[in-house]
Amino acid sequence: MDEATVAEVGEFDVIRRLVGERPPAADRTVLLDTGDDAAVLSAADSRVVTCTDMLVEGRHFRLDWSAPADVGGKAIAQNAADIAAMGGGCTGFLVAIGCPPSTPVRVLEEISAGARAEAARAGAAIVGGDLVQARQLVLSVTALGTLDGRRAVRRAGARPSDVLAVCGGTGASAAGLALLQAGWGMPGCAVALDDAVAARLIAAHVRPRPPYAAGPQAAAAGATAMIDVSDGLAADLGHIAEDSGVVLRVDPARLRGDAGGGAGFDDLRSAADAFGADPWEWVLGGGEDHPLAATFPAAGPLPEGWRAVGTVHAPGDAPAGSGRTPAEPAVLFGDSAYGGAPGWVAFGR
Amino acid sequence: MDEATVAEVGEFDVIRRLVGERPPAADRTVLLDTGDDAAVLSAADSRVVTCTDMLVEGRHFRLDWSAPADVGGKAIAQNAADIAAMGGGCTGFLVAIGCPPSTPVRVLEEISAGARAEAARAGAAIVGGDLVQARQLVLSVTALGTLDGRRAVRRAGARPSDVLAVCGGTGASAAGLALLQAGWGMPGCAVALDDAVAARLIAAHVRPRPPYAAGPQAAAAGATAMIDVSDGLAADLGHIAEDSGVVLRVDPARLRGDAGGGAGFDDLRSAADAFGADPWEWVLGGGEDHPLAATFPAAGPLPEGWRAVGTVHAPGDAPAGSGRTPAEPAVLFGDSAYGGAPGWVAFGR
Repeated sequence: MDEATVAEVGEFDVIRRLVGERPPAADRTVLLDTGDDAAVLSAADSRVVTCTDMLVEGRHFRLDWSAPADVGGKAIAQNAADIAAMGGGCTGFLVAIGCPPSTPVRVLEEISAGARAEAARAGAAIVGGDLVQARQLVLSVTALGTLDGRRAVRRAGARPSDVLAVCGGTGASAAGLALLQAGWGMPGCAVALDDAVAARLIAAHVRPRPPYAAGPQAAAAGATAMIDVSDGLAADLGHIAEDSGVVLRVDPARLRGDAGGGAGFDDLRSAADAFGADPWEWVLGGGEDHPLAATFPAAGPLPEGWRAVGTVHAPGDAPAGSGRTPAEPAVLFGDSAYGGAPGWVAFGR
Repeated sequence: MDEATVAEVGEFDVIRRLVGERPPAADRTVLLDTGDDAAVLSAADSRVVTCTDMLVEGRHFRLDWSAPADVGGKAIAQNAADIAAMGGGCTGFLVAIGCPPSTPVRVLEEISAGARAEAARAGAAIVGGDLVQARQLVLSVTALGTLDGRRAVRRAGARPSDVLAVCGGTGASAAGLALLQAGWGMPGCAVALDDAVAARLIAAHVRPRPPYAAGPQAAAAGATAMIDVSDGLAADLGHIAEDSGVVLRVDPARLRGDAGGGAGFDDLRSAADAFGADPWEWVLGGGEDHPLAATFPAAGPLPEGWRAVGTVHAPGDAPAGSGRTPAEPAVLFGDSAYGGAPGWVAFGR
């Protein structure tokens, strides 16, 4: 196995080894590729959607928990999910990498391969980047996308009487992270859990697969507000509630299916039993599953893959059923606000 | 002075303090600003130019040498210069920051203010970003731009008989860096140099001011190839020579004016004397001045601010004047290739 380091091989040769075949789907959008001062992408309807996320080793990923390819894939996934959450499709990615000079080139090649594979899943290519020396491994990804003539779907826009729906589930990633933190698969790990269940939950954490196509489909179906659920369901629905000035009332029974990443609520319950934990902490508070949440007009049918999980209300509205509607924007699960962990905290311990 | 740390203030409140007024010039291009999953920018001619650069503390900047505002400004400048080098104008920037939890919020506010000021100089706003925890301060900037119907000017495209021209000079940044490395302004610094000269050279290093407008102007004037000179004049002209398959012959006498950043060749000579160094090492090998270099058809006049410094030749052409033209793409200064430092090496010591 080639364990030559970045310092030994040198910047330009490493970059050459990181640039792979462009997926055919990207030929439509890439007008000018890597290798010049900048890349040029098409922006069909004269608008470009764009966002950026930085991932830091030891903070957002650990190479003893995630294969390098999974790290690269996740960096792309979380940006592409943000594009989808505006109703956009991806047209290209830029990937800047900082790493110690002692980093094996193989690690960067695997990160790059994983990033390219996930970019291809999102229908686009990596068209540029940077490679610099840093004390720890840092990935900074920028995604660019197209709305193809559709209106951008914001966090603001949910209206009373809309239906709240999700595409994908939550909880599996947090459960998978808990397993990794408990040393799952290492000698001496005391967690008693079925191997297949653990594998599903860990896969959900290290290889999130956001439903990219569901974003543009929701926009086309008239979604009034939408968000990528990255920090936790309660926290991110809170952004829709705040920005839209509405109360979201979620029916917890409707969350008992998909837990994200191919795992189900039963998987969460098994894992929670093994930890003596509450699976709802993961469903409501756990981040990094990257389903989409959106509100739709009540009249129309939901697009394929979306399921209704709640309703939208004006703050202070007359009680609906047994519940009271708060006077301020809020998210209710059943009749209660979620009082657990506040979702991902960037500068927490 | 408020020395509250990022950890004390928290991600969302810090971000709120970093987002400033949008410059009026950006109203035209920013369709949807920070605060949602992604931003939306106009792309008037249905294309978007984009590039990214990562800056790492201790590697690309030092906070004892550069004020935080200068660090933010330089991070924007080097990306905006790449957009200009394609013939583009900037439409927006994304800024991702990684920093230790102990970082004073003031430092981030100043970085952000400097970045916003330089973005405004480039005619655009910062429309999104990320803020995460990292062991050292890392800035990753992505620039987006428009070609406004112009052809993208690549590194490939220079043709024999074209004129080689630059807008801005080189050497001042490297001389300024040498002064900082020698402890200029610190007790015990042995370098004997006029204060005003040193100030000009150091300013060129910490506050590069690339000639953004000159890029689109060159494109409109028919530039056949263009590059942002960031790694050193010899190294970056080498990219044009390689990618275009030509020999570039530079007349050193024509480089004896502007040294970049408001400094002149006389400033370089004074500083070089003080170090017992050769000013040409800085002119030909020094990076980070960010002038633009381009080739133009010989027939037309050069756009304002550009000055001819050389000529373009086919490899192996019959000797022109006293010089022989090499059989391979190359850059000649007078009749010799530059044999000094190879320009910026990303993973060098």
